[in-house]
Amino acid sequence: MSQFPANRLTLPVQHGIDDILHKITDRLHADAWRNSDGTELPGEAHSADVAIYATYFPARGDQAHALAHPEETTRIYLMSHPVTAFASTLTIDIMDGYFAQQIAPDITCDLRRYWQVIDRTTGETITPDAWQVTSVPRTDAHDFPDDDPRSQQVTVTISDTQPTHEYTVNFLAWQLWDSTQMYNYITNGWHRDPTREKERPYDTRYPATHIHQREQLDQWLRDNPHVDVVRFTTFFYHFTLVFDETGKQRYVDWFGYTTTVSPAALEAFAAEYGYELVPEDFIDGGYYNSPFRPPRKRYRDWMEFTGRFVCDRIAELTDIVHQHGRTAMMFLGDNWIGTEPYGPNFANCGIDAVVGSVGSAATCRMISDIEHVSLTEGRFLPYFFPDVFNPDGDPVGEAWTSWRQARRAIMRHPLDRMGYGGYLDLALKTPGFVEVMEEIVTEFRAIADAGTAEDPATTGVTVAVINAWGKLRSWQTHMVAHALPYTFTDGYVGVLEALAGLPVDVRFISFDEVIESQGAVLADVDVLINVGAAGEAFSGGPAWDDPVLCELIRRFVAAGGGIVGVGEPTATTGYADRCFALCDVFGVDKERGFSLSTDRHWECVPPAATLGVDVSLLGELPDHGSMIVPVRDSVELLAVGDNRVLCASHRYGQGQAWYVHSLPYSPGRARLLLGVLHAAAGRPLGGCDLPLAADPAVDVAVYPAQQRMLVANSTDQPVTTTITGVGESLTLPAHGSRWLPYPAGK
Amino acid sequence: MSQFPANRLTLPVQHGIDDILHKITDRLHADAWRNSDGTELPGEAHSADVAIYATYFPARGDQAHALAHPEETTRIYLMSHPVTAFASTLTIDIMDGYFAQQIAPDITCDLRRYWQVIDRTTGETITPDAWQVTSVPRTDAHDFPDDDPRSQQVTVTISDTQPTHEYTVNFLAWQLWDSTQMYNYITNGWHRDPTREKERPYDTRYPATHIHQREQLDQWLRDNPHVDVVRFTTFFYHFTLVFDETGKQRYVDWFGYTTTVSPAALEAFAAEYGYELVPEDFIDGGYYNSPFRPPRKRYRDWMEFTGRFVCDRIAELTDIVHQHGRTAMMFLGDNWIGTEPYGPNFANCGIDAVVGSVGSAATCRMISDIEHVSLTEGRFLPYFFPDVFNPDGDPVGEAWTSWRQARRAIMRHPLDRMGYGGYLDLALKTPGFVEVMEEIVTEFRAIADAGTAEDPATTGVTVAVINAWGKLRSWQTHMVAHALPYTFTDGYVGVLEALAGLPVDVRFISFDEVIESQGAVLADVDVLINVGAAGEAFSGGPAWDDPVLCELIRRFVAAGGGIVGVGEPTATTGYADRCFALCDVFGVDKERGFSLSTDRHWECVPPAATLGVDVSLLGELPDHGSMIVPVRDSVELLAVGDNRVLCASHRYGQGQAWYVHSLPYSPGRARLLLGVLHAAAGRPLGGCDLPLAADPAVDVAVYPAQQRMLVANSTDQPVTTTITGVGESLTLPAHGSRWLPYPAGK
Repeated sequence: MSQFPANRLTLPVQHGIDDILHKITDRLHADAWRNSDGTELPGEAHSADVAIYATYFPARGDQAHALAHPEETTRIYLMSHPVTAFASTLTIDIMDGYFAQQIAPDITCDLRRYWQVIDRTTGETITPDAWQVTSVPRTDAHDFPDDDPRSQQVTVTISDTQPTHEYTVNFLAWQLWDSTQMYNYITNGWHRDPTREKERPYDTRYPATHIHQREQLDQWLRDNPHVDVVRFTTFFYHFTLVFDETGKQRYVDWFGYTTTVSPAALEAFAAEYGYELVPEDFIDGGYYNSPFRPPRKRYRDWMEFTGRFVCDRIAELTDIVHQHGRTAMMFLGDNWIGTEPYGPNFANCGIDAVVGSVGSAATCRMISDIEHVSLTEGRFLPYFFPDVFNPDGDPVGEAWTSWRQARRAIMRHPLDRMGYGGYLDLALKTPGFVEVMEEIVTEFRAIADAGTAEDPATTGVTVAVINAWGKLRSWQTHMVAHALPYTFTDGYVGVLEALAGLPVDVRFISFDEVIESQGAVLADVDVLINVGAAGEAFSGGPAWDDPVLCELIRRFVAAGGGIVGVGEPTATTGYADRCFALCDVFGVDKERGFSLSTDRHWECVPPAATLGVDVSLLGELPDHGSMIVPVRDSVELLAVGDNRVLCASHRYGQGQAWYVHSLPYSPGRARLLLGVLHAAAGRPLGGCDLPLAADPAVDVAVYPAQQRMLVANSTDQPVTTTITGVGESLTLPAHGSRWLPYPAGK
Repeated sequence: MSQFPANRLTLPVQHGIDDILHKITDRLHADAWRNSDGTELPGEAHSADVAIYATYFPARGDQAHALAHPEETTRIYLMSHPVTAFASTLTIDIMDGYFAQQIAPDITCDLRRYWQVIDRTTGETITPDAWQVTSVPRTDAHDFPDDDPRSQQVTVTISDTQPTHEYTVNFLAWQLWDSTQMYNYITNGWHRDPTREKERPYDTRYPATHIHQREQLDQWLRDNPHVDVVRFTTFFYHFTLVFDETGKQRYVDWFGYTTTVSPAALEAFAAEYGYELVPEDFIDGGYYNSPFRPPRKRYRDWMEFTGRFVCDRIAELTDIVHQHGRTAMMFLGDNWIGTEPYGPNFANCGIDAVVGSVGSAATCRMISDIEHVSLTEGRFLPYFFPDVFNPDGDPVGEAWTSWRQARRAIMRHPLDRMGYGGYLDLALKTPGFVEVMEEIVTEFRAIADAGTAEDPATTGVTVAVINAWGKLRSWQTHMVAHALPYTFTDGYVGVLEALAGLPVDVRFISFDEVIESQGAVLADVDVLINVGAAGEAFSGGPAWDDPVLCELIRRFVAAGGGIVGVGEPTATTGYADRCFALCDVFGVDKERGFSLSTDRHWECVPPAATLGVDVSLLGELPDHGSMIVPVRDSVELLAVGDNRVLCASHRYGQGQAWYVHSLPYSPGRARLLLGVLHAAAGRPLGGCDLPLAADPAVDVAVYPAQQRMLVANSTDQPVTTTITGVGESLTLPAHGSRWLPYPAGK
């Protein structure tokens, strides 16, 4: 792209700091400026010698359009809190627990079709004849006239209720306030700024908005000839992010499709697919089709339907951008639902570049591995917002943490560019922060240059993460809110975080792909890895009730393949005699209380030769969570805890199965995983000729054609270590790195 | 019983210590002597001024009978280790992992009917045409002629196997050695004693044994006129206890019915019940119908069938005992299977007394609460065996521990008698041990006298433990081997252990009773308590898929009843939107990964007034195990851990539900449970007028008619505390107790 020279850095800019803007741009060799949500590009931008990114919001921001077309407001499906009936009628305040500034029930739609009352005790849908909706004007302050449907207090009264049964209302609602803009508004105290509006989203599914979005973009491009890159933030449908009545987050699913619904969309779906979805298809008992739910056909149909629609509509907008000779960049977040960069439609939507927030090594790979775009860019943390840039915050520390995490991923598959976001003045005012940016961007450029010229060498082992979602959720498994930590997922996300920086080839495949290809998709896979808690989509749950899938996997291992299970792999309720469908392959199973009568033998085998890693790393495996026990005498235990197998291996035919209890990310556990993957592949790490550091805190990326390698300390402490083939030991400062010749000693 | 004056103590005696036997008997005021397995009564016994117990083994011990009727050897159902086929035929060494001295495959039975080969990968039974049994004489040392079926190396060869499928053989086997005698033989090194034999069990189901058992007993009673009490140890079928090829325990289930099988029994069953059981009905996928398994109809039929048979046969023997004017005592252990002291047939089997091993407060209540007998006796620990009575052992410490545990139970419902077992000379040689016995028995007599005269007062709250087994498993929930600790059950057994010593009325009821009585069985229950891990019989598992059960329980609570859940109560896989069937009642549910998107609020309410206990006790709740999260806004959290509700309460209609995460026994947690039970009953403990000690380490038993109360320190440390209504504080030494007037100050 002509807009981008090789300086690879995007700076957020704003009005009012013109004097130092050029200075910092020069100092950091930035080659692009961007505005952020809530900041404007300075007048300078028209003549600056950098590429200009401008944030662009197709589905919000034009308040005049929003107010003129209230019937095209973007909707969402929500469930009321369950309420127990103790008498024969029950009235439910459906907005209890929701934020009236964000949400208003859509009482104008065909309620009998688009709302649904369910007896949660029996699971039965209550006939619409047995419930009625009552609306009276709200008595609290609200933004609409009293007779506006959006200003109503809405209750649902159900007759003939069964005492002790619980009832919920699945209701279609309007989104009165864009979730991200709302978050930014509240976080930054924009209520003090009278020029700020609470931006209402509008739905491209409807005609006025559809036309307006194209016309507005065209006009905006004409009005802003200095903009080189249209940074779409993002397109049409926000991930699910719902607030409670106090304005605090109540529900967040970065993958949630709940906001893609509307009567128009549901009708189009029914016409195309030949059946009607009901509200419960979206509500899903209050789980809202979280990606942890084993996906159901009806929901997958909706995702497919929506994904096709979204990408078609994106293509219309990117066409306009290209007609104006500009570049279309997509921010991977906010209203990204339906874009699915790893889905089947992404290649056709005309997007030139993707930028995303780097919250970890895994989220970095989620950006840098995207295909069908010319360029990927990572927006590094911290975001220049007052929640971190304040006297109690540690922006310098956060910048280094973010960099250490990202660098592991970038050493495997580089981003093309990096950047920051927020208010630049906050960063400039923070002592030492510019120096940190300077160090990081310098190092980034070197790695990106090396990795753009040539893929770094791997050990030659190809690992396939296997789950219900496959490629669609590449680097996106076990995520709830973007890159935020959750106790429940800690030991599973850690596997992805480790893989993102290990010198192996990583793929993501689905159970369906294995079945549909009759196992052919496994032909170039060395090791499968199945990770997660019992019953969820990533470990598989009911998918493992399918004997065809089980047999294909068994045959893969028996023929010499490797399989690694982490957590409760292949756990399902479908078998009378086991919890792990493949307990015969792993040699271990989950104790549910049924086999306490069986005496277990917990003697461990010496792991050194097998694993090819420092055996003390086994001591880093956490000893808590479910009781996993050996169930085949042939299993070899490498580490055990309190009635809990922490690491085990099991020969199976010509192949090997390995089990690891949980793997929260740490450098040591990442190295342990590398050893396990290699052992499972039948190529013990000890025999690997790719240089590795003795200390797992140090990662090595080898660029054979360039005859050099990068060694980098992924911790915040100095490390002294040896590198395979390098005669002398090497000391790296905290988060330090060094380029060395390759082969070593050359 | 005329045989027993009120001295309440049974001593084990043996040959060769006649000189000191009378001395110790007098010193301890013992009024009964007993022999043990492997010890003989001394000649003294014929003229002693004490009651004489003699152990009696109806189903083993007569080696001549055993050898004369090998076809009547007691059998057992076993499953071979699962073996994976990697080709189209597979040969399984079915004895792999079993102990040939204990077990021999029964190859003389109708193999097509009584053996079964299963493809464990599909769950399908393989037609008998596709497998054959091969036997060749074993080459190792064995006890039988080479052509004896019991000396064979037995393999099963399966044809047309599917590669990667796993196969097992369910096989009927002979028990060549009684499990308990084997344990005692090995533990005591009896192989050095040429007079010892490895005792073979024989099956009363067969005619020669049946006749022999009666004749032998009759003759034995004639030969032993000095014996007052026939101490049956026990009757016909041993609990499941199987050893591995090294003689170590491989499988133990104190409730297991696997040894009750035989062709004769299976035929009788089929004739009576109109359907045939298959081997898998006993093997149960290798879980062998552990009591943790939600019980299936076919297995319950078998238990009922066997229980009736066993009790009928016991009645035949007790009749003979009574004809001779003696007393029939049953040891609750060893071959107790089918006796079921809490079952429907026990009242009719003519047993006068039960003696059992006291391993905890709960196992003490398991003995002392038995109805339909004139007398209960506890055999206290330690057993006088060299495994404890050696220089490295701590018999004095173990005696105090056992007493502290037992006393809590005895203060609620006394045993009539106590005793010890094993080699008396070991106890006499141990410095200080006689003094300990003297202290304990003196205290025991006082409590037993008080509790025999009058039930100690309770707080008036009736607690019903509800599970799949109900009354049948009174004080027997979550037990694997008798009173042994298991990590998995620690937090559940602790509830029973606490209840066994709390001043509340405790009952055990089953789900079926609730359903069959349409809830009437709950009429006099204040609080239900459902305890256990997801899916097992004690928490209930699939029982909660029944909407009738759920509705009856909901209505009970809604009408003002209390319910307490511990662990994963009511957890099942039967619902799309929940794990706990009654999550609406408890207000909490188990996180399976599906609702991570929902933000939880973890603020706690002040617990003091509600609970009426020292709030610091909440800090004793362990913070590990499954993630239990609040799922109804109306739930009140009292204690939380890392994404884990540890204690919560929830108003439900007129009643209250309480949740506790796990409750390993400690005095503090027992007190906490008392507070929770009272709160759930709607009668906060603060308003209770029964005296309690401020320190939960001290238990109080009040005998109103006797106008006195006992306070007892259940710990091994001195305690200073106040007692409700007692003006001054009180100091009790380690495991000390004191009688006080009641009402206090009187």
